[in-house]
Amino acid sequence: MRFDVFTLFPEMFSSYLATSMLKRAAENRLIEVSLYNIRDWTTDKHHITDDTPYGGGGGMVMKPEPIFAAVESVLGAPPACPVILMTPQGRQFTQQVANELSGYERIGLLCGRYEGVDERVREHLVTDEISIGDFVLTGGELPAMVLIDALTRLIPGALGDPTGAEDDSFASGLLEYPHYTRPPEFRGWGVPAVLQSGNHAEIDRWRRERALERTLQRRPDLLEAMDLSKKDQAFLKKLREALSRSEDV
Amino acid sequence: MRFDVFTLFPEMFSSYLATSMLKRAAENRLIEVSLYNIRDWTTDKHHITDDTPYGGGGGMVMKPEPIFAAVESVLGAPPACPVILMTPQGRQFTQQVANELSGYERIGLLCGRYEGVDERVREHLVTDEISIGDFVLTGGELPAMVLIDALTRLIPGALGDPTGAEDDSFASGLLEYPHYTRPPEFRGWGVPAVLQSGNHAEIDRWRRERALERTLQRRPDLLEAMDLSKKDQAFLKKLREALSRSEDV
Repeated sequence: MRFDVFTLFPEMFSSYLATSMLKRAAENRLIEVSLYNIRDWTTDKHHITDDTPYGGGGGMVMKPEPIFAAVESVLGAPPACPVILMTPQGRQFTQQVANELSGYERIGLLCGRYEGVDERVREHLVTDEISIGDFVLTGGELPAMVLIDALTRLIPGALGDPTGAEDDSFASGLLEYPHYTRPPEFRGWGVPAVLQSGNHAEIDRWRRERALERTLQRRPDLLEAMDLSKKDQAFLKKLREALSRSEDV
Repeated sequence: MRFDVFTLFPEMFSSYLATSMLKRAAENRLIEVSLYNIRDWTTDKHHITDDTPYGGGGGMVMKPEPIFAAVESVLGAPPACPVILMTPQGRQFTQQVANELSGYERIGLLCGRYEGVDERVREHLVTDEISIGDFVLTGGELPAMVLIDALTRLIPGALGDPTGAEDDSFASGLLEYPHYTRPPEFRGWGVPAVLQSGNHAEIDRWRRERALERTLQRRPDLLEAMDLSKKDQAFLKKLREALSRSEDV
């Protein structure tokens, strides 16, 4: 999978890309990340990439010309692959969107800065706009890294463990069950006996129920979207009844 | 504001922290980011930080001892400031949470890796768990950078422009209105005449209406949580009527 990233700060990416999974994925030629500095496509003496907004107000707006020139010279005109603007105004990035985007062989990522990009870039160049959440960052660079990380770990072979991505939060639609490792006792705090029982059916049931319980407590919105088994539904019904009883006391 | 970050990959942060706003904020002593490698608190010969999960299954779990030792040796036992575990199972990070956390002088950030951290870390060490979204990343390092970036830009003086953070998406509760800068015409695509009119009341109205329109189209969920003026409500009512008419055709 290939990522072409357009940014004013390509140097921001280097240490993240040079570590751990993304480093290995690049070494194993599972991904290729190319970074382009939009400033290199300016044509004026001062290499200006931003200007004051029409209509006044604070902040600077990224000019359209160098962005169009950079993206089109690398990806073609019109671009031959999706070009995603990372912006808080985009559609919400979720694991489902990650799965959808993982089908592409090549993706262009445009990182906004300052107040934002000139509206003509949205209207006539980018094909998608994605937000990683309802918060404001200084630019689209961290969101682009988030997207690259989330997509790369879906590529078969990118994680050391072949089953690594299957148990993740959201892969099942639920939050993950609790994990324990050695020591069996730490400062007097133990490990649930069932996990040391060797009874795999019991362990699976405990984990499923804890995942359902945690999701009900922390993110009940996730349960609404799910198609749960009769067994899961019965367990949740019992849980809800227990919760409402304890609230009545 | 001080951030103490506990991670197995402190080197991941270096280039992001050394660029742009975060670099300036550190130079101006508005923030101080200290990175600690959890591995430095292991006591065994092989510096082991993870182990297989009790109950079996794929993936590795981060052991409790080095995490407790690292956090407590830096932040005290019990820690004297919030210790936030970055995990997809945490509460959702939003601009509201950023505002809430910006009141602290010091925050500890714990970055999980592998399948996750031993449950005893959640139960007995961390004081908060935060997720940046419903997607899975390789570790909590990018989420920690996201949190540091979002909080730093709220510190007075961190942005070059003193009004920079006020117009952002979510600062008003709405998505941002469209921005335009020079040139006035690019490939035949112009700039809305109102923005070049010099009539500031008209410009303000146009921007407010475009922000409402964009939020209605892209993120109607944000409008539900808002306390809108009569004028805003009247405009949205007209918009909704126009939309339903165009759907009827």
